[in-house]
Amino acid sequence: MPANFDRLCVVLVSPRNPLNIGAAARAMSNFGVLRLRVVNPYEVAFREARSAMGAAPLLAKAKEFKSVAEAVADCTLVVGTTAVQHRELQHPLRRLEYGARLIRKQLNSGRVALLFGTEKTGLSNDDLSHCHWLMHVPTREQHVSMNLGQAVAVCLYELVRDLRKATPEKVQKRATAGEVERISSGLLEALQVSGYVKPIAVVPTEERVRRLVRRLELSSRDAELVLGMLRQILWKLRGGMQKT
Amino acid sequence: MPANFDRLCVVLVSPRNPLNIGAAARAMSNFGVLRLRVVNPYEVAFREARSAMGAAPLLAKAKEFKSVAEAVADCTLVVGTTAVQHRELQHPLRRLEYGARLIRKQLNSGRVALLFGTEKTGLSNDDLSHCHWLMHVPTREQHVSMNLGQAVAVCLYELVRDLRKATPEKVQKRATAGEVERISSGLLEALQVSGYVKPIAVVPTEERVRRLVRRLELSSRDAELVLGMLRQILWKLRGGMQKT
Repeated sequence: MPANFDRLCVVLVSPRNPLNIGAAARAMSNFGVLRLRVVNPYEVAFREARSAMGAAPLLAKAKEFKSVAEAVADCTLVVGTTAVQHRELQHPLRRLEYGARLIRKQLNSGRVALLFGTEKTGLSNDDLSHCHWLMHVPTREQHVSMNLGQAVAVCLYELVRDLRKATPEKVQKRATAGEVERISSGLLEALQVSGYVKPIAVVPTEERVRRLVRRLELSSRDAELVLGMLRQILWKLRGGMQKT
Repeated sequence: MPANFDRLCVVLVSPRNPLNIGAAARAMSNFGVLRLRVVNPYEVAFREARSAMGAAPLLAKAKEFKSVAEAVADCTLVVGTTAVQHRELQHPLRRLEYGARLIRKQLNSGRVALLFGTEKTGLSNDDLSHCHWLMHVPTREQHVSMNLGQAVAVCLYELVRDLRKATPEKVQKRATAGEVERISSGLLEALQVSGYVKPIAVVPTEERVRRLVRRLELSSRDAELVLGMLRQILWKLRGGMQKT
C-alpha cells in the first residue's frame, strides 16, 4: 500500500450493527487503510465488533468521537458517501471512479476523511454539511443501497487499484476541516447579526453556509486570509469602534 | 448494466453462513448480476439467507447444484477466486483488474462462471480443477483473506466499473467575471467600512481580494448566494436597522 494511505481515515457515523463495523474494519485491514474513526456508535455494537476476523488490532486503535465536526477536524478533504441520487443534493456528486482519483491526489498533501452513514438512512443532512463533496458507487437504479461493509470494501478497493495512474504532483496545502468550520461559524454569525438569517431559518441556513464554505475548497493560506477578514467584519458588526 | 451481464453466473461453492450468502446476493443485485448458483450449500444457511435485504427475488431464483461440474456445465469460461498466493497453484493467477477485462470480453460470446469457495478454506483443489484460471483481489500481504460477501462485491464492482467514468462529470456552471467582480467590490467595501483596510493599503488589498475571490472558482449559483449575503452584511455595516 502507498505510504500516504496513512493519511486516509474511514469515518463511520452512528453505526448500529457490530457485524457491519467488523466487516468495515476487515475490509480496511485487507486494503491497508488502518485509521478508523467512529462517531457516536451504538456502544454495545462497537464492543462486539472488536472481534472481527483479522481486524482486532485496527479496531483496538479506532478512535471514538462525539460529533462529525470533531472526527474530521484535522482533515483537509471530507468526502461523504451516498446511495441516494434523488435527494435534493446540495453537493457535487461524483462517481466512485472519479472521486477516488481526487482523493488519491489529495492524499499527497493532507488527511482525507471518507464518511459512511448509519445503516438504514445513510448520512444526515447535518453530516453532509461537513462534506466537501459526495461520492456514490455505480449500483443499478433498481437496487442502489449497499450493505455498509461492502460499500467500504468497494470504495477502498477503488482507491487501491490502478495505483500507477496516481502520480504525485505538487499541490497547495488544503485548509483543514477545523479552519473551514471556523469560517462557516464566523460567516453564520455575521449573517445572523446583520439580519440575513431569520431566527426560524437558522438551521437550514447553517447547513447552506457550511456547504457553501466547503465548496470553496480553500487553501490553508486563503482560509487564514478569509478568517482575518471575517473577524474584522464581525468586530464592526458587533458595534466595535473604528480603529484610529 | 451491460446486456451481456445476463451471461455471468456467480457460483458459491459450499457456503456455510447465511449472512454471507445474503450479502453475496445483495452485492449481485446492487451490480446487476442476477444469476446465482449454489453448490452443495449448508441447507439451513441457504434457507435463512433468503431474506437478504433487497435480494429476495434473486435468491428465490438461485439454482442449486450437487457439484461444481454441474453448476458450470453450460459456461465457456470458469474463473476461480482465491486469496492464497503461495499455494502451489497449477493455474494462471490474474489480478482482478486484468481478469475482469478478460471476463468482460468473454461475456460477448458465452456464459462465464465466477466461483467463490467456502468461507474458511476457499476453493478446494477439486473445485479449482474446473477453472480455466484464477483471479485474486489485490489485498495486502499481511491480511489477504477477504470476507465472502465483500469479495463478491469487489469482484462485481470491478466488472461493472467504467474507465471512461474516471473523468469529471458535468460540472456546475461557472460564475461570470461580472459576478465575481461584484463580489470582490462588495467584499472590499465591507472590509473598508469595518476597518480591515487601512487607507494607505487600499490598492494592494483590493488586488488581494480580487485574487482571492477568483481563486474560489464559484459556480453561478454560489456567486448569487454570496452576493446576497454580502449585500445584507453591507447594509448592516452602513448602519441599517434590524429588519423586523
